[in-house]
Amino acid sequence: MFSAMRYQSGTLELIDQRLLPGEERWIRADDLETVAVAIETMAVRGAPAIGCAAAFGLAIDARRFAASGKTWRDYAPRFQQSVARLARTRPTAVNLFYALDRMTALTAGWRDGDAFADAVTLIDQLARQLYDDDLATCKAIGHHGSALFPAGKPLRVLTHCNTGSLATAGYGTALGVVRALHERGDVELVYADETRPWLQGSRLTAYELKAEGIPYKVIADSAAAYLMQLGRIDFAIVGADRIAANGDTANKIGTYSVAVHCRHHGIPFYVAAPRTTFDPSLATGASIPVEERAADEIRRVGDRQLTPEDAAVYNPSFDVTPGSLITGIVTEVGVLKPPYGPAIAAFIG
Amino acid sequence: MFSAMRYQSGTLELIDQRLLPGEERWIRADDLETVAVAIETMAVRGAPAIGCAAAFGLAIDARRFAASGKTWRDYAPRFQQSVARLARTRPTAVNLFYALDRMTALTAGWRDGDAFADAVTLIDQLARQLYDDDLATCKAIGHHGSALFPAGKPLRVLTHCNTGSLATAGYGTALGVVRALHERGDVELVYADETRPWLQGSRLTAYELKAEGIPYKVIADSAAAYLMQLGRIDFAIVGADRIAANGDTANKIGTYSVAVHCRHHGIPFYVAAPRTTFDPSLATGASIPVEERAADEIRRVGDRQLTPEDAAVYNPSFDVTPGSLITGIVTEVGVLKPPYGPAIAAFIG
Repeated sequence: MFSAMRYQSGTLELIDQRLLPGEERWIRADDLETVAVAIETMAVRGAPAIGCAAAFGLAIDARRFAASGKTWRDYAPRFQQSVARLARTRPTAVNLFYALDRMTALTAGWRDGDAFADAVTLIDQLARQLYDDDLATCKAIGHHGSALFPAGKPLRVLTHCNTGSLATAGYGTALGVVRALHERGDVELVYADETRPWLQGSRLTAYELKAEGIPYKVIADSAAAYLMQLGRIDFAIVGADRIAANGDTANKIGTYSVAVHCRHHGIPFYVAAPRTTFDPSLATGASIPVEERAADEIRRVGDRQLTPEDAAVYNPSFDVTPGSLITGIVTEVGVLKPPYGPAIAAFIG
Repeated sequence: MFSAMRYQSGTLELIDQRLLPGEERWIRADDLETVAVAIETMAVRGAPAIGCAAAFGLAIDARRFAASGKTWRDYAPRFQQSVARLARTRPTAVNLFYALDRMTALTAGWRDGDAFADAVTLIDQLARQLYDDDLATCKAIGHHGSALFPAGKPLRVLTHCNTGSLATAGYGTALGVVRALHERGDVELVYADETRPWLQGSRLTAYELKAEGIPYKVIADSAAAYLMQLGRIDFAIVGADRIAANGDTANKIGTYSVAVHCRHHGIPFYVAAPRTTFDPSLATGASIPVEERAADEIRRVGDRQLTPEDAAVYNPSFDVTPGSLITGIVTEVGVLKPPYGPAIAAFIG
């Protein structure tokens, strides 16, 4: 199965998602800064994929330093700085912080005398484990999500952004559910929102769906409501960047728009996300930090300027969908249903 | 005031709206086919502007033929063909058919013996009159629309597509209301949906608003719902391509999406349109023809390919907003309010 990242002995290769689908170019990262910049500039994107890339970045950094023959005590301050550097890359996706927290917890008890070689091995192992866990989690999400729908009834699905192999260790979250339904023969058509401004839908989701032979059509984001009005969408499913304790969900800008449309038309709206996306430290979505990205994402596509020079722009990269608009949250252990407070507490428990 | 078209003695000049805002290039049309192609390819667009351009196209054609020294009887079959040619250019905007119907009605009683020179003059006069009427109508729409809002309370307005000078003879419909509010000092900020796929908002509305010094921000279409959730939109106003007898309104794809969002958030949603946009022959919006445009509008921007090669695409250019979601329809005689059936019947008279 296609994966957007390959890791081996201190080197992470990342497919440059900014160039897809036109060009399949891999970035070779032998140092932490290259990984951090790849996350910042969205060469790698998708909340679970960002978490995996960050963990591999720390493994790469530790291995490089180990070559200098020093001790863990020599390295520890730099490790803290590396964690801090990665934490600054993308504020909204909580999976990033989950990976950094796991790494910090792993190393928390380490003392001066510990052999650095062992430390490097343990960091490397944890990074690989986080990756393998994410892959297994996505397949479990696909299994539980597809079980929501009776077999033998072809479905017309709406999705937003990209939540597939490119956004995760592999298989995908919301797109994992679509894959599982397709394996069962129950996907009639996937409508992929193009997902302005970064075009994750037209560039990445269409690329994956085409590669898998899953029937799809790309639409302008604003056409989704019209399709619902025409009765041509059976359900919508999206991913998540952070889910608060009450089910409020931050995800790619436009997700809230889809949720409102689904409510208006009485269409089920599902979120698919692994445990690592939940942030029970936030009571509601109101305190989720929403990243604002560069105005040029709205002003131009490639070299083509779309607006007047220096046009004023508002470009929030995410929005927050209240749990009250979400029919169910598909996780690796099953589908959470409202009321989300107790359901999420029991899941995270 | 800026206008997107200039007409003089058998020549129509049209600003090529496909190149804006990067380049201000004028198309010089000395024959009907050039005008028809300009409408088809959206070098000129906007329902009222299309109607004006089509009328000028017929005036140009008559004048060219008159130079051959023949009679009205010689010309009449060609006139019918010219009307038919223009009618095929864009199916959804009814203003086009209004202009063609007015021209057909003008010439309906003409007989063989009529001097062709007089015919040319009358056709020319009617084309100029339709243009002048549209300009006056837009100003009246601006007046009535702005009167909906109390003076002295700065407003945050959402608009979709382009409904300004570029879309009309001048001043604009929905953007005419914004202009009138701005002249009164009551516009705090206009949020302009970029309006994929053709980007009328980022390319044309931003261009006009910037030129007028009206504060604006361009947003991705899918960000509008989030702004409403944040309480940052006071009302939305859009134009129309065709309005049925019950108030159902066809307009640029994404308009229905905005209307649903407004309903969900309890925000007023206005349509601004002249009488020429109403089509009382249609009982409801269900029978309004919705134009589907080329897949390449979704697949590429300029030379930049956004999707996989030959990606499957669904690209409806319009949608239909039910009258039940519309707070009021701003016309040149005042604001129509629900129930729209009787209000529209009285207006059309």
